[in-house]
Amino acid sequence: MPIHTLVNGNYSDSVSVDDRGLAYGDGLFETIKVTSGKPEWLELHLQRLLEGCCRLQIPLDLILIRQDIRRLLDEYDISQAIIKIIISRGGSERGYKSDLQKGSNRLVSLQAWQQNYSRQQTQGVITRLCDTRLAINPALAGIKHLCRLENVLARSEWQTAVIDEGLMLDSDSRLVEGTMSNLFLVSEQRLITPSLHRCGVAGVIRQQIIEKLSVALNLHCVITDVTIDDAYRAEEIFVCNSLMGIWPVIAIGCHRKPVGDITVRLQQALMAGN
Amino acid sequence: MPIHTLVNGNYSDSVSVDDRGLAYGDGLFETIKVTSGKPEWLELHLQRLLEGCCRLQIPLDLILIRQDIRRLLDEYDISQAIIKIIISRGGSERGYKSDLQKGSNRLVSLQAWQQNYSRQQTQGVITRLCDTRLAINPALAGIKHLCRLENVLARSEWQTAVIDEGLMLDSDSRLVEGTMSNLFLVSEQRLITPSLHRCGVAGVIRQQIIEKLSVALNLHCVITDVTIDDAYRAEEIFVCNSLMGIWPVIAIGCHRKPVGDITVRLQQALMAGN
Repeated sequence: MPIHTLVNGNYSDSVSVDDRGLAYGDGLFETIKVTSGKPEWLELHLQRLLEGCCRLQIPLDLILIRQDIRRLLDEYDISQAIIKIIISRGGSERGYKSDLQKGSNRLVSLQAWQQNYSRQQTQGVITRLCDTRLAINPALAGIKHLCRLENVLARSEWQTAVIDEGLMLDSDSRLVEGTMSNLFLVSEQRLITPSLHRCGVAGVIRQQIIEKLSVALNLHCVITDVTIDDAYRAEEIFVCNSLMGIWPVIAIGCHRKPVGDITVRLQQALMAGN
Repeated sequence: MPIHTLVNGNYSDSVSVDDRGLAYGDGLFETIKVTSGKPEWLELHLQRLLEGCCRLQIPLDLILIRQDIRRLLDEYDISQAIIKIIISRGGSERGYKSDLQKGSNRLVSLQAWQQNYSRQQTQGVITRLCDTRLAINPALAGIKHLCRLENVLARSEWQTAVIDEGLMLDSDSRLVEGTMSNLFLVSEQRLITPSLHRCGVAGVIRQQIIEKLSVALNLHCVITDVTIDDAYRAEEIFVCNSLMGIWPVIAIGCHRKPVGDITVRLQQALMAGN
């Protein structure tokens, strides 16, 4: 599937070897689903990107990002697609020190994407508990930075297609998220999602559930520390991200769960809400 | 200063936008000092790179790396230089999942480098204690992977040229290393260096000091957990890496230290030993 990429506004399939994103993971990314030619949850994605750039002190011009997205969507008439944005701290001399005035590199790419997740959404998914842990670093928690080796190692723990996602603990054994998704439990009619101030990525669907959908469905939503035992005891579990929507979790290893009513109601609200 | 880079054996100044080193920090690097046309500590660097590739399960062909280095040194007659190697897990489809059969991308670059560290080596350096912490992740500890945002953030904490290095604690407040260097204390005629099994990069000069120089100088060397108070109490402190050699630390913030005798003896042994 060809990828069309604008690198700093010009079509290119490559980036300079001195890019700090490559050298040090010194940057951020977003992955945005395009449905019927329209980027979903665009404002939430751009808001998170902006927050990440503020945190890392990387310059960002959202007007240019919007122009790139518009141009790609206009020039390639792809109805179902993924837009990926990478913002790095640009090129630099060797060494960790960066020139704060130097600017950034901006990659915006478009790729057709026909993935169908209806099986996962309706029947639910089997997950595993990963051995790879998430390290605790509040300075990097929540943002979608480029340093993702933990997620890569966790995802490499299984090859079978029977398992759709892996759940990850932090180094103090709190349950935090999936390798590519956020996690919610349902317990006594309450939504519970792990706190992400130590590690993890604060996804846009998680944000939408916390701020909008739980309110619309009159569900109390709690952001707190969660253990794997909390998950085993929960009535329902689901994982979510902006590409896959909401997937009911029907198993963590050999611990089985039903596809729950509240999960299904949230799925419906999410589909109606975008 | 021009950089000459071989990307998978061909001269290029760019790497594909789908490279997993850029996308996820999914790779490793080495930085090697070239003196009088000869790469210093080459075997130790290649050994560490190999260990890192084994840990991350990234294919590595050291014969090709050696060929690239040889070619760059032959074709560009640069006496004093830096060789930088980046090995990434190659290109891939979107997503953390990787194809273990797919190979890797290999970047080997040469750049002239005339940096003179004689002031730092003879007079010693002033350091600061960084606010940015190193996260604990034994799966990634020791190897020189591409996910270096913690080092970048720590290095961004100061701009003044008066400070040459920052010291970093881990998230449990153990003293681990410098932003770009390893750390040794001298206390009661013993060498002490922080254990790196939770986080940090195990540098080749650190390894050389532990395995060779301390033996040659008849110094007992202890690898253990270290606190900042241990550093304040130590008789001597120094930091080291393969580009800068050994730098005596004459201050951590306002805590002053002398340039110590054992540090100077190790500097002499290091220079004689390569």
